[in-house]
Amino acid sequence: MIYNKETIVALATAAAHGAIAIIRVSGSSALNITNKIFYGKDLLNQNANTIHFGIIKNSELEIVDEVLVSIFRAPYSYTKEDAVEISCHGSLYIANKIIELLIDNGARAALPGEFTKRAFLNGRFDLAQAEYVSDLISSDSKAAHDIAIKNMRGGFSQKIKELRDKLLKCASLLELELDFGEEDVEFIDKIELQNIIKEIISAVNILLDGVKFGNVFKSGVSVVIAGKPNAGKSTLLNIVSQEEKAIVSDIPGTTRDSIDECVIIEGIKIRFVDTAGIRTAQNEIESIGIERSFKKMNEAFLILYILDLNAFINSIDTSTFSKEIIKDEYIKFLNMEINTLHKGNSTKTEKDKKDIKSVPILKVGNKIDSIDGRILDLIKEIDNDIVLISASKNFNIDFLKKSILKLLNKKSYKDSSLSTNMRHYNALLHCKDNLEKALGDLRRRASSELIAANIRNSIKDIGEITGEITTDNILDNIFSKFCIGK
Amino acid sequence: MIYNKETIVALATAAAHGAIAIIRVSGSSALNITNKIFYGKDLLNQNANTIHFGIIKNSELEIVDEVLVSIFRAPYSYTKEDAVEISCHGSLYIANKIIELLIDNGARAALPGEFTKRAFLNGRFDLAQAEYVSDLISSDSKAAHDIAIKNMRGGFSQKIKELRDKLLKCASLLELELDFGEEDVEFIDKIELQNIIKEIISAVNILLDGVKFGNVFKSGVSVVIAGKPNAGKSTLLNIVSQEEKAIVSDIPGTTRDSIDECVIIEGIKIRFVDTAGIRTAQNEIESIGIERSFKKMNEAFLILYILDLNAFINSIDTSTFSKEIIKDEYIKFLNMEINTLHKGNSTKTEKDKKDIKSVPILKVGNKIDSIDGRILDLIKEIDNDIVLISASKNFNIDFLKKSILKLLNKKSYKDSSLSTNMRHYNALLHCKDNLEKALGDLRRRASSELIAANIRNSIKDIGEITGEITTDNILDNIFSKFCIGK
Repeated sequence: MIYNKETIVALATAAAHGAIAIIRVSGSSALNITNKIFYGKDLLNQNANTIHFGIIKNSELEIVDEVLVSIFRAPYSYTKEDAVEISCHGSLYIANKIIELLIDNGARAALPGEFTKRAFLNGRFDLAQAEYVSDLISSDSKAAHDIAIKNMRGGFSQKIKELRDKLLKCASLLELELDFGEEDVEFIDKIELQNIIKEIISAVNILLDGVKFGNVFKSGVSVVIAGKPNAGKSTLLNIVSQEEKAIVSDIPGTTRDSIDECVIIEGIKIRFVDTAGIRTAQNEIESIGIERSFKKMNEAFLILYILDLNAFINSIDTSTFSKEIIKDEYIKFLNMEINTLHKGNSTKTEKDKKDIKSVPILKVGNKIDSIDGRILDLIKEIDNDIVLISASKNFNIDFLKKSILKLLNKKSYKDSSLSTNMRHYNALLHCKDNLEKALGDLRRRASSELIAANIRNSIKDIGEITGEITTDNILDNIFSKFCIGK
Repeated sequence: MIYNKETIVALATAAAHGAIAIIRVSGSSALNITNKIFYGKDLLNQNANTIHFGIIKNSELEIVDEVLVSIFRAPYSYTKEDAVEISCHGSLYIANKIIELLIDNGARAALPGEFTKRAFLNGRFDLAQAEYVSDLISSDSKAAHDIAIKNMRGGFSQKIKELRDKLLKCASLLELELDFGEEDVEFIDKIELQNIIKEIISAVNILLDGVKFGNVFKSGVSVVIAGKPNAGKSTLLNIVSQEEKAIVSDIPGTTRDSIDECVIIEGIKIRFVDTAGIRTAQNEIESIGIERSFKKMNEAFLILYILDLNAFINSIDTSTFSKEIIKDEYIKFLNMEINTLHKGNSTKTEKDKKDIKSVPILKVGNKIDSIDGRILDLIKEIDNDIVLISASKNFNIDFLKKSILKLLNKKSYKDSSLSTNMRHYNALLHCKDNLEKALGDLRRRASSELIAANIRNSIKDIGEITGEITTDNILDNIFSKFCIGK
């Protein structure tokens, strides 16, 4: 199937200064049009998958560039159409001139994602795979890359296919019953059917969960560093980001809350967010800063709550090393801090309040470099969950990173059911919705027709993901988000 | 000749997000190293100039990307070495991973310009041509592009060769005389020799001039818009730049002097510079602004001096349309304006003063929309050189642009002797210097040995341009200015 005879052209490399730029041409006249502006040999007589040196000239026969032309012939090209790639010197002036010449000779400027759209329409891959091409070229960490390439190669599509097969089997049982409806034969035990649908719903739930996690991996795990002023939050941000990306502003105060730094830890992009210290605001600006701290915490995947252990120790009498006293004081101290966190949050709406409670908190005891080892041992004994560090002395920072990863790695980015696509998420939600309707109908002993209709709808929902069922609108919407030249 | 057996690798496309990225590998092990990480077929058994689809895997056999690999075999590649180009998805994460893998397998990260340096050392082109590869990929206007591609293809090198041939002929005549020196034979008429050297010097002067003009074309022709406050300078900048690039700030006052906009007119990049209005400064800030206006004028290729004709007309009695009165008043008005220009310049040093006088001034009479046609006819009759426009009404702006080009086009960018390279300029200056020494020696009737030595030196100078005579230092200096991957 050839989707469209129009030949399209676009710059395929980044629109910036480089040594080389690549112009991509695809469509039935790709070779013909390129041949009109190419001097050196007749491209029409050349084999597929070969490279040819020559000169591009304009209509005044002035030399535009010396180029290499790669020839692809249908169906052995990305789009499965005849295609040409022109490798020219990496000046945008030159690339644009060549594109102009190709357009003057009959090509059309490609729309965003049009090459990949044609690849999909010509059967190179399904729609879900096509969407991951875009994810792949924007991947910037191992996790994002792994998910994108796995799914571009059909990983997620395979999961969808398995789901679809289950649904089809379920539907066919019902359809069979409908065909023999008048004979009042029950081909399927309704309880068993309920169980099958419940199983499918939990499979859908796993995939829905996979999109949530996939997106966390794709856009970076937001880890908010929170705590009272001077607990050492900025120092911690500095020390964790120095590993990969050192520039962190030292400017203290109300602007601090906006500082965030992405750090790649074991292939996973983690976005550490430094926030304004939480206390009763002294003025309007600080109050806005603290408000923002809570906003960031609400949105976080994880809150690192920094405790200033030095301040704690200074506030109590440690001369006796009485475990009982230190324990009491520590619990009081923790309660006060937690109180600060929740009191600070009291300005938020009910919904936000609920959210912050659902974000896991990792307690981090800071400034251990200035504390007696015996007291640290006591704290560890009292509080199993706390991670003890010194941000300024870079003590235990690797352990902190590992602890963060451990919390995250309950879900591994190598999990084969991860997706990152919100369109897939919505389709899965609709599918689940229809399945739950079917389940309700079953329980209400509704007609098999009604149940079958809902199952059929859920199959349609799933079909939208891989593009078995699609409309021009859906396609336009998907591919318009691609970059030009892909 | 193989310059170096080390295999080098670099990203050849712009280091930014695109649909495709190209990684270039060159050297005797290019194919071998690529083959180690490429899965799909054995690249070593493939023909030159062919393209192969396959998968790149890392050492854990995880898929890094689906790629196309282009194979080039010595001497039929850019570097004249075995070479590979890997076309991967345009994520920098992916490109960097592939480069890392190639380095892990024995390649080395290429230095800036190293591919082109190898191309030069392996005899693809001479040094001057190699330098224009860099100019070509940074060309951003037709003029810059035309000069770069012509010279990359040997245009300027040909001029240098012609010059060198003349010098060699001249030198050989002298050497012949030296060989038979004891016999006191004069093989060459010294007056004729003087004439030959003079001719060569004027050929060098043409090339030196060509570099000056070439650079004007390459980096953009600086056209400074000057005049009194409210003459309409910013309006003019707006209207000329709107053609190509509309965003111009309307903020008046002391910052205005820094606004400049590049406009491509008939393939030539023209940098219009708006300056602070010239008058007796009211305060320190304005004084600095006016100082800067003069600085810009000193550096300009051309000054557009904007005359507010409306203000002129309002200052005189035009009721009679007396040609004599208007003529007198107009000359007074012009003198006052010119006076302003030179009085304003009085703060500058002697050197700068001389410079501003050497910059051509194009008088532009603005606001003609509000002036009676009969008066305009009179002004035209009185002042042949003035260009009459209305910036706000977009009257005659095309004519103004043509007038600017006319002043520039005394030298066309299609002139075959243009160069843009300051290294060539310096070598030509040295050559000229040695030739002038030879001329002086001839006039002083110095020994033929001395004259011959100076001619030989001038030949060396010329040889440096095309790289016949070169050192590692010169090469390192040249290619370190290239981008990585070229």
